[in-house]
Amino acid sequence: MSAIERLSDEFARLPGIGSRTALRLVHHLMKGSKDDTRRLAQSLVDLAEKVRRCDACGNFSEQELCEICTNPRRDRTVLCIVEEAYEVGAIERTGQFRGLFHVLGGRLSPLDGIGPDELNLSSLLARIDGSGGEVQEVIIATNASVEGEATSVYLEHEIRPLGPRVTRLARGIPVGSDLEYVDGTTIAQALAGRREM
Amino acid sequence: MSAIERLSDEFARLPGIGSRTALRLVHHLMKGSKDDTRRLAQSLVDLAEKVRRCDACGNFSEQELCEICTNPRRDRTVLCIVEEAYEVGAIERTGQFRGLFHVLGGRLSPLDGIGPDELNLSSLLARIDGSGGEVQEVIIATNASVEGEATSVYLEHEIRPLGPRVTRLARGIPVGSDLEYVDGTTIAQALAGRREM
Repeated sequence: MSAIERLSDEFARLPGIGSRTALRLVHHLMKGSKDDTRRLAQSLVDLAEKVRRCDACGNFSEQELCEICTNPRRDRTVLCIVEEAYEVGAIERTGQFRGLFHVLGGRLSPLDGIGPDELNLSSLLARIDGSGGEVQEVIIATNASVEGEATSVYLEHEIRPLGPRVTRLARGIPVGSDLEYVDGTTIAQALAGRREM
Repeated sequence: MSAIERLSDEFARLPGIGSRTALRLVHHLMKGSKDDTRRLAQSLVDLAEKVRRCDACGNFSEQELCEICTNPRRDRTVLCIVEEAYEVGAIERTGQFRGLFHVLGGRLSPLDGIGPDELNLSSLLARIDGSGGEVQEVIIATNASVEGEATSVYLEHEIRPLGPRVTRLARGIPVGSDLEYVDGTTIAQALAGRREM
């Protein structure tokens, strides 16, 4: 197999990239400077060599502990649980959360063979339990999908006996959307969760 | 900048990949095995190191001459001119062309500063002229865009004095399409180019 075919096969393994797009990417690289291609290759090697999981929270990190866990200005009394490490960024970008995170590495999904043991869960419970009461609130920020909801119910069941408040992100109308286009389940949840003005 | 940010910047430089998609690709790689990431990196290095232009036709090649130019069973009397090397594959996949190729490396586009000198053109004329009459037909397969058409007119003007027949791909209704959805210019060209049944 030629170098072009091999690279385009590798690109086509990435999510959302089909064989035509893969070939287009290879040709784009061929037209550009070889240095650009080498720099992309080096960035990939760096990712493989340098990036690991934070020992405390499971977030991506280049050190044993990630920048959030080692930041002395973060509020250690609140823990936000997300399914995947890339969701940390979504919450960080709001600038509204100053606590720490815990990355589950997935959601409960029995059909896919993912039970509690496949998730970063025992470390979560040990972390809360071992904090000696420092963790006062756990915000469950799993996705609003069926599996995400099931995971949040399971987490609540496991965490509450350890002492902290257990909360979850509000369900409701997304900001900027027309009621007409919001699905009924969301409106029902928004009604149930209505707030005083 | 972290390794994740650097790689996602590199991905985002590729055509059709925005910053969100780039980040999704990085996270996909992070979730997978490090060997997959290293293999993608190695394929990129191989592309930069091994792939070059064929000295004769300008197609991609890992040797001085590409596999098509060195294939003794190709018909050396017919030359097909394409704009870009990746268009060679589109014609090869039809299995209907047994001649050789010549890759221009672009199309005439004065607004972008691309004139005859920026294209792989003098080598084309030298190749036809130097063949001692072996090249009997030149098929112009530039794109059916305004620039592609202008390029084909220019090529015809340059090549005809050298002797060979100059032809171009037929314009017409794409196979499998409804007349209703075909644009008027294409229908007009299909009418002008109609064939006896």
